[in-house]
Amino acid sequence: MQFSKFGQKFTAQTGILQLMADLGEALNSEQPMLMLGGGAPAQIPQVQQTLRQRMYDILRDESRFDRIIGAYGPPEGDLDFRKALAEMLRKQYGWALGPENVALTNGSQTAFFYLFNMFGGETADGGFRRILLPLTPEYIGYADAGIAEDLFISARPAIEYIDDVLYKYHVDFNQLRVGDDVGAICVSRPTNPTGNVLTDEEVSHLAQIAHERDIPFIIDGAYGTPFPSIIFTEAEPIWDDHIVLLLSLSKLGLPGARTGIVIANETIIKAITSMNAIASLAPGNIGAGIALDMAREGEIISLGRDVVRPFYLRKARQALAWFAESMGDTPYRIHNPEGAFFLWVWFPGLPTGSAELYKRLKARGVVIVPGHYFYPGLKDDWTHRHECIRVSYAQEDGIVEAGIRIIAEEARRAFA
Amino acid sequence: MQFSKFGQKFTAQTGILQLMADLGEALNSEQPMLMLGGGAPAQIPQVQQTLRQRMYDILRDESRFDRIIGAYGPPEGDLDFRKALAEMLRKQYGWALGPENVALTNGSQTAFFYLFNMFGGETADGGFRRILLPLTPEYIGYADAGIAEDLFISARPAIEYIDDVLYKYHVDFNQLRVGDDVGAICVSRPTNPTGNVLTDEEVSHLAQIAHERDIPFIIDGAYGTPFPSIIFTEAEPIWDDHIVLLLSLSKLGLPGARTGIVIANETIIKAITSMNAIASLAPGNIGAGIALDMAREGEIISLGRDVVRPFYLRKARQALAWFAESMGDTPYRIHNPEGAFFLWVWFPGLPTGSAELYKRLKARGVVIVPGHYFYPGLKDDWTHRHECIRVSYAQEDGIVEAGIRIIAEEARRAFA
Repeated sequence: MQFSKFGQKFTAQTGILQLMADLGEALNSEQPMLMLGGGAPAQIPQVQQTLRQRMYDILRDESRFDRIIGAYGPPEGDLDFRKALAEMLRKQYGWALGPENVALTNGSQTAFFYLFNMFGGETADGGFRRILLPLTPEYIGYADAGIAEDLFISARPAIEYIDDVLYKYHVDFNQLRVGDDVGAICVSRPTNPTGNVLTDEEVSHLAQIAHERDIPFIIDGAYGTPFPSIIFTEAEPIWDDHIVLLLSLSKLGLPGARTGIVIANETIIKAITSMNAIASLAPGNIGAGIALDMAREGEIISLGRDVVRPFYLRKARQALAWFAESMGDTPYRIHNPEGAFFLWVWFPGLPTGSAELYKRLKARGVVIVPGHYFYPGLKDDWTHRHECIRVSYAQEDGIVEAGIRIIAEEARRAFA
Repeated sequence: MQFSKFGQKFTAQTGILQLMADLGEALNSEQPMLMLGGGAPAQIPQVQQTLRQRMYDILRDESRFDRIIGAYGPPEGDLDFRKALAEMLRKQYGWALGPENVALTNGSQTAFFYLFNMFGGETADGGFRRILLPLTPEYIGYADAGIAEDLFISARPAIEYIDDVLYKYHVDFNQLRVGDDVGAICVSRPTNPTGNVLTDEEVSHLAQIAHERDIPFIIDGAYGTPFPSIIFTEAEPIWDDHIVLLLSLSKLGLPGARTGIVIANETIIKAITSMNAIASLAPGNIGAGIALDMAREGEIISLGRDVVRPFYLRKARQALAWFAESMGDTPYRIHNPEGAFFLWVWFPGLPTGSAELYKRLKARGVVIVPGHYFYPGLKDDWTHRHECIRVSYAQEDGIVEAGIRIIAEEARRAFA
């Protein structure tokens, strides 16, 4: 059987697919693994209790359950939920939007697949446009999403040293070139993998560039504001007619429901709607069904702010403390954990490289994600790329602590 | 903002997107509409009761609910459900398959989007391959799914006249040309929109061609065997290593959960898995979660066979009878309803064409789908294309009966 170019591209054993297969195998291995590798959210009892209760509420109203489970929604997603979200955002932030500015997708990854290919790739006039990632490290999941080859261009960050351990990446506006071939700008905020939260100034500056160029500025808020609010610094949510804000119910505890939310101007929402119609008929109803009353009652915000954020903030501090206890005099730095639920650990001068460290850790039963995958579009072979790893601290404390102690041991061995 | 070619193609107001927007508007209009247009399944009390009970069972086992809703599944879909399905199919039909032959997608439409573009479009050696639909009318939802232009080629059917009203389409093997540019063959069985069920001989013949050419033969079983079994004739399910069987939980009552099921050889399953990983991280868990025990206990089969099929069979016969009562001497024929839940009504010599009849019916408060959209890839302007409409009989009897009486009136006017 012969695949098309599209088929070949998406089945080629790219580094990332290999890594995912490898992580999957590690999960299914007989050896019990300390899983600090994935993007799975924590099991937070109060969150789980809330979601179960919402599902009971739906079941008790039989016709409501029947409608959610037994009917196709419209291709733009459930109207009631889109209305409730738009109203909440209008009230909370004064953004001029209605349900026509909101579309749902089967997870926000699907929205990225649509958006990157809508604004990147060949144009009708024979040109080629790329997606600019103004700051790497950036999310691994973007890297393979282009139907066209070579869809991303990206830049190294500027580095601010905060203290002996902590540091922070910034967009290096002095070096940033936004060529005419840029079709859209994209950042995750907080950044997956680093836990960086772009400052309000950085975001305004990028928004201004997008305005001047009349291109969309895509902000991946999967961990961010206004929900699930896994942000430990001050960060203003921002939206205007050139900003595409992507939200998700996954990190609020609903990854199994696959509910991505796109907030954008009407032209983009119509495009997402068309793509949904063609590529999946309609997004699923269940995530929106569970979250409808939560959006109407404000719990979609308060659950993040009052339960999810404090939960991860405590775990971030705890994980930092375990690193401080374990590392001894092995050289290491950690990106200031400003959000999400990862520590981005940098071993300056790491002799083995992050790929080898990943292998050695896996052999010791600890799964992390090696850092060199998080530079989609970056052409130069910067040493820093091979000196970092992403460590999730979402798991139970015992697992995280045991994992960090083994990471410290293997890092020491690597430098020995 | 400038779209790429991909963006332009998928947002162009193709006939089908316009039709969908129009159907959506009709649904939201202030005038109450008799909705005989969509593909929504009926509300069948016994089915709804079963699905509610399954969800209660999940909720009562708290950790099970938490796992389904609160964790990402693997990109190929939930292992337990894939195992249960493979085992059921192996036992029932003797097919040599395991969980490695099963992948889940967010609805089967998503699987079609993947498959059509994996096997159709430009190839690495500069060639171009198309998807062959050997019998039109064929499903409207395929038409826009190609990233490449002009992805489909298709053929007129042979027509068998059964009696004064009923007729049946057959694959016209005498005329069927399967060129070297064919990358895959695809049929829906039962056919949406006609309710046709390809005979076992036709299916074997197509499977043989696919084998000889070493291309996949994609069978869309969304309404078919082994579930939900909305088939009123004898039809053997068929699978081998060149057949891609697509199933769905939608017509079993779960369209809101978006659960498509692909049964195929391992190479194709791996390709679907990669596409899922890249375009959506993972399929949703909830449909598979609800249906897991149903698959283990055989209810996924028995619910279709004993509840869903008899329900629609009765409604098909009733709808035929209402047409017979209403049409008087207006010329009409109906495709023998062998499955699915549509009547494909042919008005031979219809002076106005199906597009105009659609408009007039909408003005009378009856929504159907005009037939000319169901010929993806057919180049010649066959008169028959403009003489048919698709009428769903899934709605409540009162709605279907009232709709059919108005259809009869408008058909009479059209011929007057």
